[in-house]
Amino acid sequence: MKEKGRTARSDLDAVLAAGFLCHLGVLVDGTPMVVPTVYGATADTLYLHGSSASRSLIQAPDGTVCVTVTHVDGVVLARSVFEHGINYRCAMIYGVPRQVTDEAEKLTGLRVLTEQAAPGQWDYARRPSRKELAATSLLALGLDEASVKVRTGPPDDGDSPDAQLGLWAGVLPLTTVRGALVPDPALPPDIELPAHLRRD
Amino acid sequence: MKEKGRTARSDLDAVLAAGFLCHLGVLVDGTPMVVPTVYGATADTLYLHGSSASRSLIQAPDGTVCVTVTHVDGVVLARSVFEHGINYRCAMIYGVPRQVTDEAEKLTGLRVLTEQAAPGQWDYARRPSRKELAATSLLALGLDEASVKVRTGPPDDGDSPDAQLGLWAGVLPLTTVRGALVPDPALPPDIELPAHLRRD
Repeated sequence: MKEKGRTARSDLDAVLAAGFLCHLGVLVDGTPMVVPTVYGATADTLYLHGSSASRSLIQAPDGTVCVTVTHVDGVVLARSVFEHGINYRCAMIYGVPRQVTDEAEKLTGLRVLTEQAAPGQWDYARRPSRKELAATSLLALGLDEASVKVRTGPPDDGDSPDAQLGLWAGVLPLTTVRGALVPDPALPPDIELPAHLRRD
Repeated sequence: MKEKGRTARSDLDAVLAAGFLCHLGVLVDGTPMVVPTVYGATADTLYLHGSSASRSLIQAPDGTVCVTVTHVDGVVLARSVFEHGINYRCAMIYGVPRQVTDEAEKLTGLRVLTEQAAPGQWDYARRPSRKELAATSLLALGLDEASVKVRTGPPDDGDSPDAQLGLWAGVLPLTTVRGALVPDPALPPDIELPAHLRRD
């Protein structure tokens, strides 16, 4: 079995550290709603950027949510269609999120979240004013109830009768890569690219 | 506003055609659960690979689900932290899925789903046996109730007072790329790579 649950805390941390976008599942009028949103993870807390979905969730009677972070690493090309699959890393976190209201924690959460998606920008860009902070909805979710699943490696039918079919089998890896920075057209030409955005 | 809802059917088709992984939101014991799974789209139907989650959903009293497909296109680096964001394309589809039981439709759905993740493999790999077909859970969801949201372009603060701060601003594009194929170690050395997997 190349697909398995992982129970070590370090596996959860690794999946969370490898991305910045999650899918937040909330209940709206009794129906599940799945919204993509950015997150930032500390040692014990997942901070999520609020949205209209998360605001309605806060009003729900049972506020349990599910946050799923998935990284697709490749397509598993097996000898049989049945054994085709995806190499992936996935974390699911359950809990009742807390709306962050304390100004200091809101700043911490926003910093973690900003740095996860755009490292170096918290110190470079203008930080939120009190008015902007108040207008930002931020959720905090504990990392206690989480599960991690990972699939890696070749197809599972290498030692099956299908291996005699003479078909090619393997994995098509998929990776997310950074492209060349696109300057805002409104940018004056004399503004230099800061060091943290330069690629060596 | 560079973030907006799209209502044309072609926008939905484009978002669905650009990927093969969705996040399926179902209700399990009253709690939302978000599971990643592969999909394939026809003109009017989204086929989803079943899982334990989708099986439990079928038993739920109200079987409405939400399927979300998200593509991250870049990180929006604004002058202020507040205006930071993500360029993305997102489709959300709501409906009550139907468990596919008809053998012919199951084959069609599996073909669509397989070809979306691994083009060319349906004709190349061994197709499902009747036993494998019976063991495969496939869901069908209509595409009637869907919404699409897209954000593109530079940050929104190019004409704000923050534009005077002298800070660099723009977009860091992100793309998913195919890596070099990794042959199954169990593969005999004389098996040739089929044409549909070769890159020119």
